[in-house]
Amino acid sequence: MTDALIAALRPEAGEAPESQIVAVVNHGREKPDIIPLWAGEGDLPTPDFICEAATRSLAAGETFYTYQRGIPELRAALADYYEKHFEVRMPAERFIVCGSGMQSIHMAVRMTAGTGDTIVVPSPTWPNAPASIELNGAKARTVPMTFDVSGWTLDLQAVMDACDATTKAIFVNSPSNPTGWIMPLDDMRALLDFARARGLWIIADEIYTRYVYGDMPRSLSFLDIADPEDRILYCNTFSKNWAMTGWRVGWLVIPQALGQVCENLIQYNTSGVPAFLQRACVAALSRGDDFVDFQVRRAREGRAIVCDALSASNRIELARPGGAFYAFFAVTGIDDTRGLAIRLVDEAGVGLAPGVAFGPGGERFMRLCFARHAGDLSKAMDRLTDWLNNHPA
Amino acid sequence: MTDALIAALRPEAGEAPESQIVAVVNHGREKPDIIPLWAGEGDLPTPDFICEAATRSLAAGETFYTYQRGIPELRAALADYYEKHFEVRMPAERFIVCGSGMQSIHMAVRMTAGTGDTIVVPSPTWPNAPASIELNGAKARTVPMTFDVSGWTLDLQAVMDACDATTKAIFVNSPSNPTGWIMPLDDMRALLDFARARGLWIIADEIYTRYVYGDMPRSLSFLDIADPEDRILYCNTFSKNWAMTGWRVGWLVIPQALGQVCENLIQYNTSGVPAFLQRACVAALSRGDDFVDFQVRRAREGRAIVCDALSASNRIELARPGGAFYAFFAVTGIDDTRGLAIRLVDEAGVGLAPGVAFGPGGERFMRLCFARHAGDLSKAMDRLTDWLNNHPA
Repeated sequence: MTDALIAALRPEAGEAPESQIVAVVNHGREKPDIIPLWAGEGDLPTPDFICEAATRSLAAGETFYTYQRGIPELRAALADYYEKHFEVRMPAERFIVCGSGMQSIHMAVRMTAGTGDTIVVPSPTWPNAPASIELNGAKARTVPMTFDVSGWTLDLQAVMDACDATTKAIFVNSPSNPTGWIMPLDDMRALLDFARARGLWIIADEIYTRYVYGDMPRSLSFLDIADPEDRILYCNTFSKNWAMTGWRVGWLVIPQALGQVCENLIQYNTSGVPAFLQRACVAALSRGDDFVDFQVRRAREGRAIVCDALSASNRIELARPGGAFYAFFAVTGIDDTRGLAIRLVDEAGVGLAPGVAFGPGGERFMRLCFARHAGDLSKAMDRLTDWLNNHPA
Repeated sequence: MTDALIAALRPEAGEAPESQIVAVVNHGREKPDIIPLWAGEGDLPTPDFICEAATRSLAAGETFYTYQRGIPELRAALADYYEKHFEVRMPAERFIVCGSGMQSIHMAVRMTAGTGDTIVVPSPTWPNAPASIELNGAKARTVPMTFDVSGWTLDLQAVMDACDATTKAIFVNSPSNPTGWIMPLDDMRALLDFARARGLWIIADEIYTRYVYGDMPRSLSFLDIADPEDRILYCNTFSKNWAMTGWRVGWLVIPQALGQVCENLIQYNTSGVPAFLQRACVAALSRGDDFVDFQVRRAREGRAIVCDALSASNRIELARPGGAFYAFFAVTGIDDTRGLAIRLVDEAGVGLAPGVAFGPGGERFMRLCFARHAGDLSKAMDRLTDWLNNHPA
C-alpha cells in the first residue's frame, strides 16, 4: 500500500532523496550526551535582544498578514547592512525576505530552472541545493572539486564545459559548505564573464561570507564585481550570523526588476514571513555586529581545536577550511561514511554528517561543525580519537 | 532590461500571476481609515495565551533546528484535536506541520502534479490554489459553479467530465472561499468513489470547516467517509480558527505512508517551522476551544449584518454563505470588479477583493470578509450603500 501510494505521486516528489544529514540526526537526536556536530548550527541560542524584539512585536499584536516581500523596515535594514559590511549601497527593493536561506535557494532555483533544464553545481555541496533543483524537475549537474591537503580546488574550465544548451544557472557556494573553499577573485571574474556571455544565471549562496579565517573581515561577494542588472540571485540567511537557525528567515538579493516575480513565488508558497519574526531580524541587523564578531572569533577558536586534533592523527586527511565553519575530513580506510556516522553516534557519542550526503567528491569525507563551545569540541575530539584508536584501519 | 531579465526566467515563474487580491491590498494598505475586508483574516490579534506560549519557548532558548515534520507535541495535539472535533482517532504520524495553509496546498500540489499534468478545480476559487498549480508547471482546469440567489451549485458530472488522462487530482475547498458553498454529503461520496475508481488524488482544503452557520458544529470532512489509505491530502491552517494569519503555520493530514515524502518536500523548501511557533500552536489546539467558538459566533453576527444590508439593496445579488466567512456578491451593472475594488478603496474607504481574482464564474462578484467587529461591518455597509447610492447603475 505504501509503495502504491508513493508510486501514485509525481515522480520528482516521490523520488526526492531523504537528506542523509537529517537521517543521521533523526537516528541520534534523542540520544543522551551526544555532542551534535552534524548540522550547520552552533550551540548558542539566539541572543536575548533579538528574541525580545519578536516578543515585543507579538505583545503589540503584530499577528496579521504582512508584506509578501518583507516588512519595509527589514528591507531597509538589509540595505544598511550591505552598505556597512559590503560597501555597496542598494535600494531596499533589491531585498526579498524569505522563509529561510533554504527557501531563498528554492526560489532562485524555481525562477531559473524546471523540467528539461540543468543547473551546474560544484561538489561536494550542501545536499539541499541539488535536491531542490531535482525536486523542481531540473537536473543538477555536479562538477567534482579536487581535494588536496593544501586545499580544495575547483576546475573552472570543467564548470564551463559542463554548461550546455539546457543549462540555465550555475550554483556557487562560497565560502563552501562543506569544504570551506573560497572562490578566488579571478575565478569569480571569469565565471561572471562566462555567465554574461552565455546568458546564464548565477545563484550565489553567500551564507558564510562573514565566517572567514584569513585577514579579510569577509570573503568576496559577487556584489564586489557585478552590476545591479546582472543575472545573479544572492541567497542568504539569518541562521548562521545571528544564531537564528530555528527562526527560518533568510533573504534574496535580486535584480530589482524581479521584485514582482519574487512576490508571486512567495505568495503561492508560504505567503510571507511573520512580521514579528522580521522585527527580530531588524534587531539582529542593527544591533548584532558585536554578536557576529563574537561568533566568528569563537568559530576561529573551534577551527583551531578541531583542525589541530584531526591533523595530529595519521588516519585523517583534511584541508584547513578558509571559510564557513566545518571541518571536512576523510578517515583512511573507511569508505562507508553513512555507516561511520551512525557508528559514531552510537559508539562515540559524536554526531557528524556523512560525506556521501554531499555528492561527488565528498563520499570519503565526514563533515564536522565547529561553531561550538571549545570544551564541547575538545571533548568531541577526544571521543573521536579514542574511537579511532579502538578501531584501527 | 526588466523585460529581458524576466524573459530569462523559467516561464512558470516569470508568468506567475500577481494576486489580484494582494494588488488591491497593496494599493490601499497605507490608506488612513480604510476598513479592510479584502483579505481572509479577522480583526482580532492572536489571543495572549497563544502568544505567551511562543514567548516562553523563545525565552527558554528553543531557537534551534527542529523536526522537519513538526514537533512531536504538536502532531500529538493535532491528533487529539481531530479526535475531539472530528470523532476520528488518527496516529500522530498522519500530521505534517507546514509553514502555512498555503504551503500545505503547495505541498499537496507538488506531490501530485507537475509539467504535463492537470488538476481540476471548481471555481470561483481562492486564486492561490490554481496559481500554485500553474507555478508547478501543471494546468488548473477550472469547472465553473452556478450562481443563484438560493446558493451556489457544483455540477459534479462536469467535474468528472473535466478529468482526463492528464488529470492527477481534484481540488475541493468546502466550505468554499469565496462562495461559502458546502459540498453535500452525497457529492462527497460520489466524488470519492470516482477518485478511487480513477486513481485520482483529492486535495481537500478544509480550512473553514469550523465556520458554518447551520445547526452542525462543523461541516463534513472527507475524513467522515474516507479510509486512512485513500488518496486524499487534507490542507489546513491555524490562521482562521485561532486568529493566527500572521504566524504562517498550517498542517497536512496525509496517508501515513507519505511521511518521508513530506519531510523531504519541507526539507528542500523551508526546512521546517520554528519550534517556538509550534509551541504556540499546541496552546491554540489544547486551550483554544472557547476562542474558536467566540470567533464563529462573531462571524455569524457579522454574516447577518453584512447579508442583511446587502440584501436590502436592489443592486446586489447574493447567496447567503453556508460556511467560511465571506459574502460574495455582484453589483448590478458593474463588470470591472478590479476597477470597482480600487474605487471603493479610494472613494468609500472599504477594502474588498475583486471577483475576477477568483476565476471563471466569479468575475462579476466582490468578496467581503465578515470576520470582524460588528461596528466596523455596519460602518462598512453604510459606506458601501452610500457609494452605491451616489453611483447609480
